[in-house]
Amino acid sequence: MRNLKILFRCLLFAAVASSSNAQIAQRNILTEQLGYPPDAKLLIVHADDLGFTHSVNAASIKALESGAVNSASIMVPCPWFPEIADYAKSHLDFDFGLHLTLTSERVYYRWGPVAPAGKVPSLLDNNGYLHHDWTRETHIDPAEAEIELRAQIDRAYAMGVRPTHLDSHQYRLDSTNQDLFEVALRLAHQYKLPFFVTRDWFADFPYLEKTLGPIDVVIDHTITIQPDVFAAATTAPEKWAAFYNKAIRNMQPGVTELVIHLAYDDPEMRAATRERDTWGAAWRQRDFDFFTSAAFRQLLRDQHIQLITWRQIANRLPHN
Amino acid sequence: MRNLKILFRCLLFAAVASSSNAQIAQRNILTEQLGYPPDAKLLIVHADDLGFTHSVNAASIKALESGAVNSASIMVPCPWFPEIADYAKSHLDFDFGLHLTLTSERVYYRWGPVAPAGKVPSLLDNNGYLHHDWTRETHIDPAEAEIELRAQIDRAYAMGVRPTHLDSHQYRLDSTNQDLFEVALRLAHQYKLPFFVTRDWFADFPYLEKTLGPIDVVIDHTITIQPDVFAAATTAPEKWAAFYNKAIRNMQPGVTELVIHLAYDDPEMRAATRERDTWGAAWRQRDFDFFTSAAFRQLLRDQHIQLITWRQIANRLPHN
Repeated sequence: MRNLKILFRCLLFAAVASSSNAQIAQRNILTEQLGYPPDAKLLIVHADDLGFTHSVNAASIKALESGAVNSASIMVPCPWFPEIADYAKSHLDFDFGLHLTLTSERVYYRWGPVAPAGKVPSLLDNNGYLHHDWTRETHIDPAEAEIELRAQIDRAYAMGVRPTHLDSHQYRLDSTNQDLFEVALRLAHQYKLPFFVTRDWFADFPYLEKTLGPIDVVIDHTITIQPDVFAAATTAPEKWAAFYNKAIRNMQPGVTELVIHLAYDDPEMRAATRERDTWGAAWRQRDFDFFTSAAFRQLLRDQHIQLITWRQIANRLPHN
Repeated sequence: MRNLKILFRCLLFAAVASSSNAQIAQRNILTEQLGYPPDAKLLIVHADDLGFTHSVNAASIKALESGAVNSASIMVPCPWFPEIADYAKSHLDFDFGLHLTLTSERVYYRWGPVAPAGKVPSLLDNNGYLHHDWTRETHIDPAEAEIELRAQIDRAYAMGVRPTHLDSHQYRLDSTNQDLFEVALRLAHQYKLPFFVTRDWFADFPYLEKTLGPIDVVIDHTITIQPDVFAAATTAPEKWAAFYNKAIRNMQPGVTELVIHLAYDDPEMRAATRERDTWGAAWRQRDFDFFTSAAFRQLLRDQHIQLITWRQIANRLPHN
């Protein structure tokens, strides 16, 4: 959790961060590789956690079909993975990635590993589920993490998903240690897929920049909403849209990923998340309402922001 | 599925079946062991499939708390098991059993084994879930079934459930072969819990009677609603209650288990069961509506039916 908090702090200022000359140069490379002028503001509107519940699947599909949300990633160990895999299989033009998952972070609704439990003991709690959380005492064996994540990717392919990218649930692969980040990069290389990393995280996790090689993709910025906004929006609902409005108006040139969490505030989702408001049912309904609104589309137009996908980025990888 | 169909046929006539003298004698033993006169009509109103979805949990808890549903069993491998385990742990006076599960029978929402996958390969499909169904080609290794079911029972105890009985999801342990039925009885003996068997099934599955020993419990009859009633109720909704009314009015003396399936007809449940109406969302809402109605309570009073629980039966086992 400590690492996640650092990451939060880092992300909070992401949208308004100033850039060094070196960063501008690097940014221009990705933007230009994608065929855009160097001052273009490119945005991936990315829904996380597909497969988590039916509510997440239904709301995310609705938002993807409305067109203003244009990318998403899927959690393979989750019980509703077969539903979203079936959808992805019949919508191969959509920009679905895999949301590599090493935790089962809720209390009343849980899942185990995809790999055989005997091969990944360090990932499991006493009841056989993926850990609820990692404490300082939890030793996650990177070799076991790699076995589990390879099993997740293989199950996704076996069930018809053709992912365009990889990313990490709860940023565990980015924000824990170099060993786990190396696992993510090895999988990205093996499956020839880009793995989501942004240079916004470099200051807090110096091993990221050090570990990345010349064929790895680095996104310039990321934006995601924070628990303090959720708390404020409880009494002043307009603060939810205000956060996104400000963040998008402050977007810098380069490639930005907007990480969002969609679901309906319905009985299933309220029950699945009832022990904690953060990324809970009401939070996700607010995201759904904002990102399917006409106001969000208008904002993108007003700010001359162009939507891009991970598929476009993947197509620029040297091996593709 | 063939065995299930035979079982259906058998169950269809259960409520009106005539009894041999030997059966009456056996029935009297259980009834009298429970402390009731030999002509008493004793009923367990038993909700199956707890843990399956949040919708099942919420509707079943509501019906149990209303008092006219007085027993239920829980599926340990299901994603919502932690929710119902938490409830059971804080309601130790409720009559919760374990609904031993060897299948993951839906299409868009699925679960794997509780035991390590490497120890139970014959129970798993190509994607690592418990089989959707068993065909003639599926060889279920009884030793692996025993490993898996022991893991289910052990996880339930570890998470605070104190089961009063065992039964079998989709009657797989009763209606497949003697080997699997022996697994069920071994587990019942080891954990000192009664396992649900009724003499209604003896004619179609002769190995049942042959395998049962003197300490095993045998329920006299069972009642459960059938797909033909669901089909009829689509155009004539009153046929749902009419089935139960007739079955309960025709109840014979002895111990009967009424097997019911509760959930709300909500988005989660509709999505989880959408490929097949049988035991689907609308079916379960009809059961919920009937078994929480005042009419059902009145019917029990009118017919002088007394509700009993598996806990009462378990307390009469020689080792308890």
